[in-house]
Amino acid sequence: MGQTITEKIFSEHVGKEVHAGEIVRSPIDMVIGNDITTPISIKAFEDGGFEKLANPEGFAIVLDHFIPAKDIASANQAKISRDFAYKHDLKYFFDEKDMGIEHALLPEKGLVLPGDVIIGADSHTCTHGGLGAFSTGMGSTDISFGMITGGNWFKVPESIKVVMSGKPGEYVSGKDIILEVIRILGVDGALYQALEFTGDTVPHLSMDDRFSICNMAIEAGAKNGIFAYDEVTEEFLKKTAELNDGLRAEPKIHYSDEDATYTRIIEIDVASLEPVIAYPFLPDNGHPVSQAVVDEIRVDQVFIGSCTNGRLSDFKVAAEILDGKRVARHVRLILTPGTQKILRDATKAGYIDTLIDAGAVVSNPTCGACLGGYMGILGDDEVCISTTNRNFVGRMGSRSSKIYLANSAVAAVSAISGYITDPRSL
Amino acid sequence: MGQTITEKIFSEHVGKEVHAGEIVRSPIDMVIGNDITTPISIKAFEDGGFEKLANPEGFAIVLDHFIPAKDIASANQAKISRDFAYKHDLKYFFDEKDMGIEHALLPEKGLVLPGDVIIGADSHTCTHGGLGAFSTGMGSTDISFGMITGGNWFKVPESIKVVMSGKPGEYVSGKDIILEVIRILGVDGALYQALEFTGDTVPHLSMDDRFSICNMAIEAGAKNGIFAYDEVTEEFLKKTAELNDGLRAEPKIHYSDEDATYTRIIEIDVASLEPVIAYPFLPDNGHPVSQAVVDEIRVDQVFIGSCTNGRLSDFKVAAEILDGKRVARHVRLILTPGTQKILRDATKAGYIDTLIDAGAVVSNPTCGACLGGYMGILGDDEVCISTTNRNFVGRMGSRSSKIYLANSAVAAVSAISGYITDPRSL
Repeated sequence: MGQTITEKIFSEHVGKEVHAGEIVRSPIDMVIGNDITTPISIKAFEDGGFEKLANPEGFAIVLDHFIPAKDIASANQAKISRDFAYKHDLKYFFDEKDMGIEHALLPEKGLVLPGDVIIGADSHTCTHGGLGAFSTGMGSTDISFGMITGGNWFKVPESIKVVMSGKPGEYVSGKDIILEVIRILGVDGALYQALEFTGDTVPHLSMDDRFSICNMAIEAGAKNGIFAYDEVTEEFLKKTAELNDGLRAEPKIHYSDEDATYTRIIEIDVASLEPVIAYPFLPDNGHPVSQAVVDEIRVDQVFIGSCTNGRLSDFKVAAEILDGKRVARHVRLILTPGTQKILRDATKAGYIDTLIDAGAVVSNPTCGACLGGYMGILGDDEVCISTTNRNFVGRMGSRSSKIYLANSAVAAVSAISGYITDPRSL
Repeated sequence: MGQTITEKIFSEHVGKEVHAGEIVRSPIDMVIGNDITTPISIKAFEDGGFEKLANPEGFAIVLDHFIPAKDIASANQAKISRDFAYKHDLKYFFDEKDMGIEHALLPEKGLVLPGDVIIGADSHTCTHGGLGAFSTGMGSTDISFGMITGGNWFKVPESIKVVMSGKPGEYVSGKDIILEVIRILGVDGALYQALEFTGDTVPHLSMDDRFSICNMAIEAGAKNGIFAYDEVTEEFLKKTAELNDGLRAEPKIHYSDEDATYTRIIEIDVASLEPVIAYPFLPDNGHPVSQAVVDEIRVDQVFIGSCTNGRLSDFKVAAEILDGKRVARHVRLILTPGTQKILRDATKAGYIDTLIDAGAVVSNPTCGACLGGYMGILGDDEVCISTTNRNFVGRMGSRSSKIYLANSAVAAVSAISGYITDPRSL
């Protein structure tokens, strides 16, 4: 009986062939916590009287949401993770000393790999499926269980096959593909299912695109998103290994069988896909830009960043569009890189200078504005076009503010005009 | 009857010779507001039924304390200033599009000049005295009066003469001089008086040093701090004019008369001055580093930034000290540049790469952590060594936290050891 890549990952981990719907107790390769969620996990761990992590090198804490501390509560909250990390001499602890958004940082550090089973107390943990891992978000007490036992219980998910065809056009990126997928599926269209991304578009998608796509799998309710290993993955891992003196472990490569079972197959004609804009207040409220209201929706803030779209390619396209241009007077353009490496690479490439010249402010890496944390919060009735992942009511600030989700090109061009604009009109 | 430089500036402005103690109504060259204080000024302005600024090109709004918005309240507060700036088509309005801390940004833009009378709704407005201006902090309603009339009432201040002798030693900067002056005077030792900085040390002091010194004049209660125009000032203005396509106006140069009256003369032997560390909880609690407890006071956070010490020379000395080194595991090192130009110059000089390699995080320009705003707030019982200007109880966060004030070299070397350390021990 054929298996999907997700079923194969679990089969390999539990040592026997398993299929969708089975409940398995699987070892976990990497358990991830952040500054918001880890303190709860630590409390459960310590309240249970546990003293040692089952697998200290399989546990990473990344402080990224509210540091450098936004306020006293954030500072106190971060201290709980800091103290735990020092006490357990944690190898993979990231704070101000190597700042990054967890889902941008861990792939960059070679800590999440193809074939891994990964859980993280953050809903966008599904990002790492871009590398061919099974990676999913869980609650803080499930993270505790992972810390204590090195594994957890899973129901092996059914899979939806997304077949993407054709090469993306100009100003069309992974973000548009996933917004289109979510538009088709709806925000609960893939509940507890894997979204497996396939088709002849795949070789055209950079790792940045793949991370962006898998990142938002959760916005269709998916358990995980996943791309199979290919030459793009291989090249990414090769560079990552060079930069990090090796990878955490060897990649474990799996491919779905031709006769694997899918609950649904959806087809995306990527060649004819336009930039997609998701209107307030759900990510499935997508409109192809040619059918969207453009040049009329005035924006107060443009935000480019987050674990979804705060990567080098986002800075690149923004810099190319903003080169020699100036942000509209009534607009603030805020860019937040995913990691220090992205910031430095963008600086070396000249993007940061171009962006600052155009009137942007570039923050240090942080989850910041995306979740309404800080560094770009919306006031009453303000409108933002954002490359982030959620446009819920009040997500980035005031409950009367509005968020339009888009790719970085749409965001950048809208910063110039001050209105939501089609980048293809440039 | 001889006059001080401060008396001469007022005399020139009011068109007759005036002396300390006289109440004058003086025109103002530049009125400054920020995101916290300007909304109150705007309200008073609008409640009074006023519609036009007396001198639109003599009014600058700099959003620097809580933007990019820390929270909804900050975003709403900033909006008041934004809307006013757009309505009045303000020439000198700075937000995310050209971010900087007001007291670092305005000199850089050529908007504050020797001989000016400047008021700002921020206590550290005294910074601009480094250029030979009379510059002082006032309340928001006084700012409204400046907006409405283009002038204000002043009591011409008496002056204290600070005579500095000798060349500063290694790792001794303007910050140490002003901490020593405040140590001698006490936090209320110069109430409503000008602190006039003179002596053969002056030619050795860069503009960065002079701004740093005048910035903290208020910490001795002074009305203003002031340096006379010299070659260093001239060179600074020349470069500023080149970068900005000219200055806002011609410098007006004044020197104190030899027979000017001073209420007090204090002498600082700068040649033998050591780095000074101001212990909690007042800036006058200074200790020369050789008499300070070093290597025993553990720090959780090191902060280099603010309108006091967030300039290029601060990044330079920090980068030189941290080159090839690593921040102690338990320490977070946060650097906040005063302006985008400082950030870019520090990047070009390689300082930012060095600092990030060492484990620092570099934020965008903001007042941020200094005033307990955001971007590096202290939790309970945490200890910070900081290049900022105030170590009051709870200034940077929790009321049980502690702040030690120092120069950027002391801060940088303490980041490596994790304890307050004498940089001369390197």
